[in-house]
Amino acid sequence: MKVITLLTDFGVKDPYVGVMKGVILSINPDAHIVDITHEIEPQDVTEGSFLIRESYPFFSKGSVHVCVVDPTVGSNRRAVALEHDGHFFVGPDNGMFSPVIDKNSPVYQITNKKYMRREVSGTFHGRDIFAPVAAHLSLGLDPAVLGRNLDDPVLLSGWEPTVKGRTLTGKVVRFDRFGNALSNITVEAFNKFIRGRRFQISLRDMRFKKLSRSYYESPVTCVVGSSGNLEFGLFKGNLAQERAINKGDRISVTLLRR
Amino acid sequence: MKVITLLTDFGVKDPYVGVMKGVILSINPDAHIVDITHEIEPQDVTEGSFLIRESYPFFSKGSVHVCVVDPTVGSNRRAVALEHDGHFFVGPDNGMFSPVIDKNSPVYQITNKKYMRREVSGTFHGRDIFAPVAAHLSLGLDPAVLGRNLDDPVLLSGWEPTVKGRTLTGKVVRFDRFGNALSNITVEAFNKFIRGRRFQISLRDMRFKKLSRSYYESPVTCVVGSSGNLEFGLFKGNLAQERAINKGDRISVTLLRR
Amino acid sequence: MKVITLLTDFGVKDPYVGVMKGVILSINPDAHIVDITHEIEPQDVTEGSFLIRESYPFFSKGSVHVCVVDPTVGSNRRAVALEHDGHFFVGPDNGMFSPVIDKNSPVYQITNKKYMRREVSGTFHGRDIFAPVAAHLSLGLDPAVLGRNLDDPVLLSGWEPTVKGRTLTGKVVRFDRFGNALSNITVEAFNKFIRGRRFQISLRDMRFKKLSRSYYESPVTCVVGSSGNLEFGLFKGNLAQERAINKGDRISVTLLRR
Repeated sequence: MKVITLLTDFGVKDPYVGVMKGVILSINPDAHIVDITHEIEPQDVTEGSFLIRESYPFFSKGSVHVCVVDPTVGSNRRAVALEHDGHFFVGPDNGMFSPVIDKNSPVYQITNKKYMRREVSGTFHGRDIFAPVAAHLSLGLDPAVLGRNLDDPVLLSGWEPTVKGRTLTGKVVRFDRFGNALSNITVEAFNKFIRGRRFQISLRDMRFKKLSRSYYESPVTCVVGSSGNLEFGLFKGNLAQERAINKGDRISVTLLRR
Repeated sequence: MKVITLLTDFGVKDPYVGVMKGVILSINPDAHIVDITHEIEPQDVTEGSFLIRESYPFFSKGSVHVCVVDPTVGSNRRAVALEHDGHFFVGPDNGMFSPVIDKNSPVYQITNKKYMRREVSGTFHGRDIFAPVAAHLSLGLDPAVLGRNLDDPVLLSGWEPTVKGRTLTGKVVRFDRFGNALSNITVEAFNKFIRGRRFQISLRDMRFKKLSRSYYESPVTCVVGSSGNLEFGLFKGNLAQERAINKGDRISVTLLRR
Repeated sequence: MKVITLLTDFGVKDPYVGVMKGVILSINPDAHIVDITHEIEPQDVTEGSFLIRESYPFFSKGSVHVCVVDPTVGSNRRAVALEHDGHFFVGPDNGMFSPVIDKNSPVYQITNKKYMRREVSGTFHGRDIFAPVAAHLSLGLDPAVLGRNLDDPVLLSGWEPTVKGRTLTGKVVRFDRFGNALSNITVEAFNKFIRGRRFQISLRDMRFKKLSRSYYESPVTCVVGSSGNLEFGLFKGNLAQERAINKGDRISVTLLRR
């Protein structure tokens, strides 16, 4: 039984996600379909890209991840399928797959109509292209038959933190349900920059000289969250609302002099 | 593995949908259950009927569709199971199945207690009648054993567009998550009416002389949406909110003189 | 195929529930995962405990129920797995399991790292402890190997109705999507108290001298809801909003003199 995950901005009010599942199960009745989320902020490709990186490693290799945040559906933007770290990813070529594209990730443009629905609409490639392609990949299809190998997939710029002198600069990329603010600073990037030295983390008027282990430790905390990135939260409170944090707000990590 | 879809106005806050799945899996542990949506506007039977028509064709024949928008549960409204186009439908007899009832659709009143839960509540037939009946149908039960054949199922009136002279008149029947307005005018009904002639579509103060292929083409568009019906939307915007469109708003398609 | 249910306050916006499913399916690819709800009011352990009791009986014996409302994750609160009525329950030891703990319910503290993820975070035990333990239990693991038998699990106080003289007193414990108010008074407790005698039920300024069979019977009703508890609702209306009912509001059932 192969797993197919779905990550979209379609919401759960409309029948679109259910319909994609119908298309998948019509092709592979044994697929095990898992919803990651359908509540990405509409058309926020950047938020989608972070959620891809945050979620796929918890699935078995061989899983197929369908990711659809697709503001330019119906334009000439390309459809792609790619392989990374033993996983398959299917969706629009709009930068959303930036975190899972590197030199060892073959990216294929999906053009082979044999693996699409017979009629392809101008508005719903999730149903007409991405769902059937994912179902075929879950049955073992070689992605190379989908179309030509692309050497210029669209990549987002500026989504990784930058280092300048004694400061690492990142930003708030999304909020979770509890109003905690999630950054684009991974614990790996943080540790590599700090190397055991003293530091101060700043977000708006908040300052932190240590990472907490959980939101339980103090009223305002900076933790390595479940995302594996630095997160900021209030104990039993909503940081986003109570401190008016916005997506994109600057986060700096500065090394302190002894 | 048989598919059972669920389409309700129960929302996802309450445990009701999960409980229905428990009942189904207790009877058929191999059922593959797919949520279409549980966010139909509470008690809006008409919206439910459009979602049935919009979603069921994407599933394999033999699938069972449980549809529960049930404002008069506990009254003497009947429970029904019916067959249409190779699919099974189960739910209250309140008009919601209008799009899938025709002369070739046998409709059975569910009265055989053998296929219900032992105790049937007055408030939750989704759990006590419809879920177990659907599970049994997914195991191959002949719907004729559920009860007598009904020749007077409840049908909604006025849900299809009407033609008068040079004008086809429909209405807005629901909004999707992005605030696009979906009409009750199918592309088939539209094409049959237009037959290649020039036309003007009106919704409030908006006028369209062509159908767009996607929301990407212009700021305000009328497209044949993923529903297969005429839809109206703003590119990267929320039409419902920004133009104050309401459910029920009149849509007219008028043939233009040469 | 074993069923694993999930009951959390994680919401469906974040990828946390999907990630838990990835962890479960990596260990038991044949698990059938069912969402009960992820919309428990954040950190409301009491609401969670009622939803556990309301939902688990509708699943087959042998099912595993993962319940995570965990305001003190990362503190020294314990993790537990327990058996009750042929079902397994996994989650934090914070009182949430009060309705399913009695003398015949062995409770084990989860300390055996063999059944956790290799790295256990301070913020997300749902993914790192509860999901993998549930997956192993669904494969037939004996819960006794998880850790020592606890004789002092945390229990909530005051969550059951009390009887004093001629009055049984309960409270509103949650609202459903339609704004109906659900009480902590089970139909069994009610019947045992009333024993066929005349009564009056009071909630704020509303008085009821009978239980209705459904919300259809009158504008304001007290019914034995689908939860199996006394519920209060408005026909086609939202009681919580229109009558400003709050969680915790007192409900009294008083025996009337002849």
